[in-house]
Amino acid sequence: MTEKEKMIAGELYLASDSQLLKERQEAQLLFQEFNALTEINKTSRNVILKSLIGNLGTNFTIEPPFFCDYGYNITIGKNVYINYGCCILDGTKVIIGDNCMFGPNVQIYTATHPLEYKARNSGKEFSKPITIGHNVWIGGNATICPGITLGNNVVVGAGSVVTKGFPDDVLIAGNPAKIIKTINN
Amino acid sequence: MTEKEKMIAGELYLASDSQLLKERQEAQLLFQEFNALTEINKTSRNVILKSLIGNLGTNFTIEPPFFCDYGYNITIGKNVYINYGCCILDGTKVIIGDNCMFGPNVQIYTATHPLEYKARNSGKEFSKPITIGHNVWIGGNATICPGITLGNNVVVGAGSVVTKGFPDDVLIAGNPAKIIKTINN
Amino acid sequence: MTEKEKMIAGELYLASDSQLLKERQEAQLLFQEFNALTEINKTSRNVILKSLIGNLGTNFTIEPPFFCDYGYNITIGKNVYINYGCCILDGTKVIIGDNCMFGPNVQIYTATHPLEYKARNSGKEFSKPITIGHNVWIGGNATICPGITLGNNVVVGAGSVVTKGFPDDVLIAGNPAKIIKTINN
Repeated sequence: MTEKEKMIAGELYLASDSQLLKERQEAQLLFQEFNALTEINKTSRNVILKSLIGNLGTNFTIEPPFFCDYGYNITIGKNVYINYGCCILDGTKVIIGDNCMFGPNVQIYTATHPLEYKARNSGKEFSKPITIGHNVWIGGNATICPGITLGNNVVVGAGSVVTKGFPDDVLIAGNPAKIIKTINN
Repeated sequence: MTEKEKMIAGELYLASDSQLLKERQEAQLLFQEFNALTEINKTSRNVILKSLIGNLGTNFTIEPPFFCDYGYNITIGKNVYINYGCCILDGTKVIIGDNCMFGPNVQIYTATHPLEYKARNSGKEFSKPITIGHNVWIGGNATICPGITLGNNVVVGAGSVVTKGFPDDVLIAGNPAKIIKTINN
Repeated sequence: MTEKEKMIAGELYLASDSQLLKERQEAQLLFQEFNALTEINKTSRNVILKSLIGNLGTNFTIEPPFFCDYGYNITIGKNVYINYGCCILDGTKVIIGDNCMFGPNVQIYTATHPLEYKARNSGKEFSKPITIGHNVWIGGNATICPGITLGNNVVVGAGSVVTKGFPDDVLIAGNPAKIIKTINN
């Protein structure tokens, strides 16, 4: 397996691999160009986003600045709104359902490292996929940790740190996020 | 009532309304211009801020980047210092008193959505005003949620998530923020 | 003592001092230039970083945007990786050991103010040094408060707010951060 194949499969891989380094640079050039364009150039901005993001549904809005690792591991459904400052570390699959709304500064991290420093210093890291259901609203400045699955219709309170998965139809909040209430949908 | 009038009144409104879309674009053009200017152009930067922000007191410093929705719903008192990366979602009134200090990355959100996904997916949302007293120090990376009132002389610990109001002269911290101690002023 | 000498010594000082104002402007010009360069200009970017940061070890990566107050109070060891959006308020010494990894949006603040508003409004503030050991991994969106010392091999969970020091070989997380487990190194 190549380092890229290991990365996407969730196995230990070397982020300093030359192909991966090149692909991260290509992604950075795209989102830096996106981030430098103003609201007047919305059409150009959306062309860049379609080139950057693996699967991008219709009727999307992503407000700059936006940051990611590769882009190609990100799938975004239709009718999704992502506010200023979102960062998606997409070493492996990040799936965002239809009709999702993200407040400003939402952080989505698939990237993780070994806890033991000697293993970590080897440069080998791994990624755990993140799946966000349909109709999910993530409040601003929330952090979604590696490997998380959120069900449909979940609401994540602003500033939450989500360290485990949650089922459909719940409001979660806090650090670590816990269920505050069930939402009557 | 127009959608804008509903928005400012705190009623359900359509953020996709053409007038509101145009006004958000105008605000984005202003703060993107502000954010792209360097420290050398401080005079030009402050001219932009005066044009962007509804009421801006004397002797202010706002460090770029800065983000907001409209700008015109924001009132900032005199002698206010706002550090890098502040984001104010000002669907309705945000009032910041005199002598306030914000650390980097402070997030102030009046914008909120229905908890039930069908209502949320209709595109109707609402805003709840935020009032921050005089002499308030908000630590970096803190999040102030919709509808909050903070009294005078409050200190908000770095990284706090403020989900309810607090009276004068308290130090609050945590997620959700709680009173840590009364400050002897 | 000059205001700068007081600042670095951790005593009360005036941030509005003309020399300090000039030095913050110089730092801002440097990191704004850094932040505006793309991945293609990595060599130029690293030249700027070497000029900005007091001591910068070999084999470093800092991803833009990056923010700081002065830069010259920052010491960074070798083999350090700092992801997007890091902000270091370096009124006094910030020491980061070898082989450290920071996720996106890590906030490191030495800057603090008096709790009592009258003293705070005088404009006098102070700084408390931050020391981060070797082999420390700080998760994204974590906040490190003034005066903190973290031992070697510490792992800080994403979104943590670190309000006190911790010894070697622990995983900490939460707001405020607490020991989750000892790491068997």
